[in-house]
Amino acid sequence: MHKLLLSTSFAVLALGFSGAARADDLLTLQKDAKQWALPTGDYANLRYSSLKQITTENVSKLAPAWSFSTGVLRGHEGAPLVINGVMYLHTPFPNVVYALDLNHESKILWKYEPKQDPSVVPVMCCDTVNRGLAYGDGKIFLAQADTTLVALDAKTGAVAWSVKNGDPSKGQTSTAAPHVFKDKVFVGIAGGEFGVRGHITAYNVKDGKLAWRGYSMGPDSDTLIDPEHTTALGKPVGKDSSISTWQGDQWQIGGGTTWGWYSYDPELNQIFYGSGNPSTWNPKQRPGDNKWSMSIWSRDLDTGKVKWVYQMTPHDEWDYDGINEMILADQDIGGKKVKTLVHFDRNGFAYTLDRTNGELLVAEKYDPAVNWATKVDMDKSSKTYGRPLVVDKYSTEKNGEDTNTKGVCPAALGSKDEQPASFNPDTGLFYVPTNHVCMDYEPFRVSYTAGQPYVGATLEMYPPAPDTNTGNFIAWDARAGKIVWSNKEPFSVWSGTVTTAGGLAFYGTLEGYLKAVDLKTGKELYKYKTPSGIIGNVMTYENGGKQYVAVLSGIGGWAGIGLAAGLSKSNEGLGAVGNYKGLAEYTALGGSLTVFGLKD
Amino acid sequence: MHKLLLSTSFAVLALGFSGAARADDLLTLQKDAKQWALPTGDYANLRYSSLKQITTENVSKLAPAWSFSTGVLRGHEGAPLVINGVMYLHTPFPNVVYALDLNHESKILWKYEPKQDPSVVPVMCCDTVNRGLAYGDGKIFLAQADTTLVALDAKTGAVAWSVKNGDPSKGQTSTAAPHVFKDKVFVGIAGGEFGVRGHITAYNVKDGKLAWRGYSMGPDSDTLIDPEHTTALGKPVGKDSSISTWQGDQWQIGGGTTWGWYSYDPELNQIFYGSGNPSTWNPKQRPGDNKWSMSIWSRDLDTGKVKWVYQMTPHDEWDYDGINEMILADQDIGGKKVKTLVHFDRNGFAYTLDRTNGELLVAEKYDPAVNWATKVDMDKSSKTYGRPLVVDKYSTEKNGEDTNTKGVCPAALGSKDEQPASFNPDTGLFYVPTNHVCMDYEPFRVSYTAGQPYVGATLEMYPPAPDTNTGNFIAWDARAGKIVWSNKEPFSVWSGTVTTAGGLAFYGTLEGYLKAVDLKTGKELYKYKTPSGIIGNVMTYENGGKQYVAVLSGIGGWAGIGLAAGLSKSNEGLGAVGNYKGLAEYTALGGSLTVFGLKD
Repeated sequence: MHKLLLSTSFAVLALGFSGAARADDLLTLQKDAKQWALPTGDYANLRYSSLKQITTENVSKLAPAWSFSTGVLRGHEGAPLVINGVMYLHTPFPNVVYALDLNHESKILWKYEPKQDPSVVPVMCCDTVNRGLAYGDGKIFLAQADTTLVALDAKTGAVAWSVKNGDPSKGQTSTAAPHVFKDKVFVGIAGGEFGVRGHITAYNVKDGKLAWRGYSMGPDSDTLIDPEHTTALGKPVGKDSSISTWQGDQWQIGGGTTWGWYSYDPELNQIFYGSGNPSTWNPKQRPGDNKWSMSIWSRDLDTGKVKWVYQMTPHDEWDYDGINEMILADQDIGGKKVKTLVHFDRNGFAYTLDRTNGELLVAEKYDPAVNWATKVDMDKSSKTYGRPLVVDKYSTEKNGEDTNTKGVCPAALGSKDEQPASFNPDTGLFYVPTNHVCMDYEPFRVSYTAGQPYVGATLEMYPPAPDTNTGNFIAWDARAGKIVWSNKEPFSVWSGTVTTAGGLAFYGTLEGYLKAVDLKTGKELYKYKTPSGIIGNVMTYENGGKQYVAVLSGIGGWAGIGLAAGLSKSNEGLGAVGNYKGLAEYTALGGSLTVFGLKD
Repeated sequence: MHKLLLSTSFAVLALGFSGAARADDLLTLQKDAKQWALPTGDYANLRYSSLKQITTENVSKLAPAWSFSTGVLRGHEGAPLVINGVMYLHTPFPNVVYALDLNHESKILWKYEPKQDPSVVPVMCCDTVNRGLAYGDGKIFLAQADTTLVALDAKTGAVAWSVKNGDPSKGQTSTAAPHVFKDKVFVGIAGGEFGVRGHITAYNVKDGKLAWRGYSMGPDSDTLIDPEHTTALGKPVGKDSSISTWQGDQWQIGGGTTWGWYSYDPELNQIFYGSGNPSTWNPKQRPGDNKWSMSIWSRDLDTGKVKWVYQMTPHDEWDYDGINEMILADQDIGGKKVKTLVHFDRNGFAYTLDRTNGELLVAEKYDPAVNWATKVDMDKSSKTYGRPLVVDKYSTEKNGEDTNTKGVCPAALGSKDEQPASFNPDTGLFYVPTNHVCMDYEPFRVSYTAGQPYVGATLEMYPPAPDTNTGNFIAWDARAGKIVWSNKEPFSVWSGTVTTAGGLAFYGTLEGYLKAVDLKTGKELYKYKTPSGIIGNVMTYENGGKQYVAVLSGIGGWAGIGLAAGLSKSNEGLGAVGNYKGLAEYTALGGSLTVFGLKD
C-alpha cells in the first residue's frame, strides 16, 4: 500500500467517521441525498436523488467543475462513493482505491493499491472491470479481481481485514461491487465462461467472518433452499429443485454466477439479486432447466435462506445472464401500493414482481427488436406459466451444435447488461440504458478444464438492421410494461443512470458524452464529451451547498473490449466486438472522473 | 498503422489541404490566429495569439468544452496542432498520432501508431515524452522516440516517407518536436546523459532527403562553423573553435544535444536554437570550455552555416542545458526597434541578444534564488566578457569529484526547463513558467560505454528553503532584465504558456490546473483542474467562430518522473525526484486533452 500524508483537515473530518461507524447507520446515510454511500445509491437500487439544485431549467449551465485521472487504462465501470466530504474512487485491475478530499482541491488523502497476481487478468472474461466500492462500519470494502475481499479503514486506507472469496486458478474472479446491508458485506463471483458455480457470500463487516454462502445450483444444503418453504411463482419448489434439472454432475460446473448489483429491503429483511448463465453456452451439453441459473433470488439477510426464486430463462440457449439489478420500487398498481421488484433482463423482457412473494405481475419486451420468444406466458393455469415462449427458429438448442443460428435478438450482451437503470418516484417511471443488438450464435461441444475458458459457442453481433443505432435510452412504465419514450443512441448505452428531483435523468454514452435529459420527454438538455467512452454509472452528491454530478469515463468492458484489449477485428474477443462499428472513431482508452456542477 | 474509416465530411475538407500544400504557405498559416500550425505557435516562438474572444472580462465564464483521452499514460509534453478544422494530437511513447475532426464531434479521422522497439524506453533519460508534431507541405511530421522522422499525409495518415535520424542503441533518442521552416524539416537529438554528440539536421519536406547536418562540437566541417565569418560576441571564432576547448577525443562523446524548440526569422533566413550540457556531468573529466555545448546558435536555414554562436555556460558544472527556446521578439530598446532574441536559460539567467549579430544586450537572473554565479560579465573590455562569474563555493569543478556541493541554485532542472515562455507584444513582456529549486551535486568518475548511462553525478533537489514553493509564474521585462510580477505556485510550473490579445496568459500546473491570469497584474482569473498534472503547453485556436484554449494533461516528464515511473523515493530516478514533495497527493497518471471555451 502506498499511504500518503494525511492533511490536517482530515483529522477533523475523522471525527465524523467515528460517529458514523456503525453499519446500521447506512440506513440513515443512504437516505441522505448529499451522500452517495452505496454503489447502488440506496438499498433499493433506485438510483434516485432528491437533490434539485440542478433542474431542467438550469441544466444548460452545467459544466465540468473538476476532473481526476485514475492512472489506469481499460474499462471503468461503477461509480465513486461520497461520504461526509470524502470521495472513494476505484479503478479496474489493479484495483487502486483513492480517497479524495472534496473540501481541499480533491487532494488524495490516501491511496490503496493491492498486490495481485496478474495471472488473474486472462481469466477475466470481459475486460478487467471493477464496479466499485461499498462502505459500512467505518470501512471501505473492495472486491479485488482475484476475489480477495478487503476492508480498508475509511480514514487511513489501512487494511482492517481481508478474506479470499474464490480461486482465480479455477476461473473465479470478482468484478462486482461488494454490497453492505446492515451488518454484513455481500460478494458474488464471476466466471460463468469458466464453468464456475455461482454463489453469494455474506461476511460480517466487523471482522470478515463468514456468515453464510448460498450457491445458485446444487443440493438444497448448498443453495439454502427450503423445499417446503421456498417458493417459485407461489408454489413450494420441492426437494433438490436445482440438481433435478441437470444431467449428472454438470451442475458442479454449471455457472449461475452472481456478478450484478444487489438490493435490500430492510422491512422484509430480504436481499435480492440475479444469477447468470448456465455453463457452457452450448445448450446441448446441459439438458434440463438448469435451475437456478438465470433466476431472481430473494434471500433472508441473516441466514441466506431462500424465500422465493424465479427462473426467467430456463435452459438458456443465448447467454442471457440474469444478473441485472433488482429495483425495489414501491408502486401504485390498481389503486394499491405494491412492494414491487423491477428487473430489466438481458433476455429483453422487463419483469415486475411482487417482491414480498415473487408473484409475477408484468413481463414485457423493453426493446422492440426482441424476437427469441414471443412472450412470457402469463396464464396462471398454463403448464408453461412464467416461462418465455421460445421461437423455434431462434432456438440454438433445436438448431443444434455447429449450426449457426442467425438473427437472434437480443445478442448475448442482452437488451441491457449490468449497466443499471433507475427509478424516479416523481414520474413513476424507470430510466433504462439499453442495447439494440442482434447476433448469430453457433454452439459447439467443449470439455471442461479448471481455469480454462468453457464457453462453447461463437457469436457475431450486429445492429438489428444495417447501419441502425445500437442503443436506446428509454423511459419505462413497469406497471403497464410499456415504453413511454425512447431516445436513439448510435451505440449501446452502457452507462448506469441516475435521476433527480430536478426532473433530470443523467447517463453516459460509449462515445464519451455525459447527457442530461428531461424525465418527462427525454429531451436532451445538456451534453459534454468526457475524455473517454463511458461505461461507468452516473451519480450525484452535494458538497459545500452545491450539487455535483459525477461519472467515470474509460472505454472498455464487454462493450469496449475490442478497444480495451487492442483487438482490431470482430470475433477476436470473447463474443464479438464488431457490433460497435465506428466506435474507435470516437474514443480511446483512459480512466478519469469528471465532476459537473452549475457554472457560477 | 491503424487506419480508421474516413468520414465523408473529410473528403470535402481535404480540398482545403491541397490548397495549402506548399511548405511556404506556413508563413501565412502561422500568421492566421485561427490556426495553430507550428508546435511553437509561430516561427518566432512568441506563443502569442491575436484572438480576443476570451478576455480578462469574460474569462470567468470559461469552461471545458470537450476532452479527449489519448490512451497513453506517462508524461504528456507539447501541444496539438490545429489546421483548417483538424486537430493533430500526439502522445508520449509509443507516439500515437490522432487527427480529430473539430467540425464533427472531434471524431478520429485517422490514427497512426508506429511500431517501435520498446528497448528505446530505458534510454530515455526523463520519461517517455514527445513534444509534438510539425506541419508542412500537406504532411504531419512526427519524430518518434527511436529517432525515426516520419512524414504522414495530413489527409489520410499514410506514411509519405521516413528517415532514421539516429541510433537508440547508442543512447540517441528523439523527444523534441520537429520544426518545419520554409521547405525543410529540422530535428534534433537527445541523449546528453548517454554521451551523444548533439546535432541538428535538416531534411527536405518533399522527400526526406538530407539537406544538411550541423554538430554542436567537433571540427569545423562537422559544426558548419566558418572560422572567419562565424562570430561569437562580435568576433570571429577562429579555426576549430570547438575541439580546441576539449581534451583529447572527449568531444566525440561530448553531449551538446539539441532537444529544444527552434525558431526561424524568415527575413534573416536564420534558425535559432540551443545546445545542451557537455557530457559527462562530471566536469573534471572534460577540462576546457567544452564548446559549443550550452550555446545559442544562429544558422542559415538553407546551408546550416553558422552566423554566430554564444556560449552561456562555458565548462558546465551543473547540467544547465542551453536548449530552452529562443523567442524572436522585436522590441523597442532605447527608442529603436531591435530584432532581439530572448532566452530563459536553465542556468537562471535570462538573455536578451541582438539576433542579427549575437550581440549580448541583457543577462539577468530571472529567479531570485540563483546563486552559482554572481552575474554575467557585461564589461566588453573584460577578459571574461559574456561569461558568468562563478561563485567558488558552488563550483562542483573546484570542489572536485566525490564531493557533495550543497545548496546550488538553480537545480539541474534549471530555473526553467523546456517548458516554453511566451511574449506578448501588447505589454512588451515575457511570461515565463519557472522552477524555484536548488540542489546538492556530487560528481564522480564514469567510463563511457555506448548506449549506457554516462551521467557522472548524483543530485538531490529541494526548495530554496524548507516548505517553500518550488515554482513561480513570472512576467519579465527583457529590456531591463527585471521581474515585473511573480505568482507563487506550490510546484514548478512545467507547462508552456500562451498569451492572447484578450489580455490573458494561460499556463498549467503540476497539480493539474489550467490557469488564466491577467497579463498586467498576474491576477488569477480562472482555474480548472484537468484530469492529471500538466506538463503540456497551452495553445489557442478558433473554430466555427469560437475561440478555444487547449492543453494536454498527463503528469510525467522530468518534473513527474517519480510518478511516471512509479518511483517512491528521491534519488531513484535520474537526478532526484524528491523535490516535489506532496505532488502525489494531487494527481495520478493519465493523458488527456481538455479544450476550453466560453460557456454559452
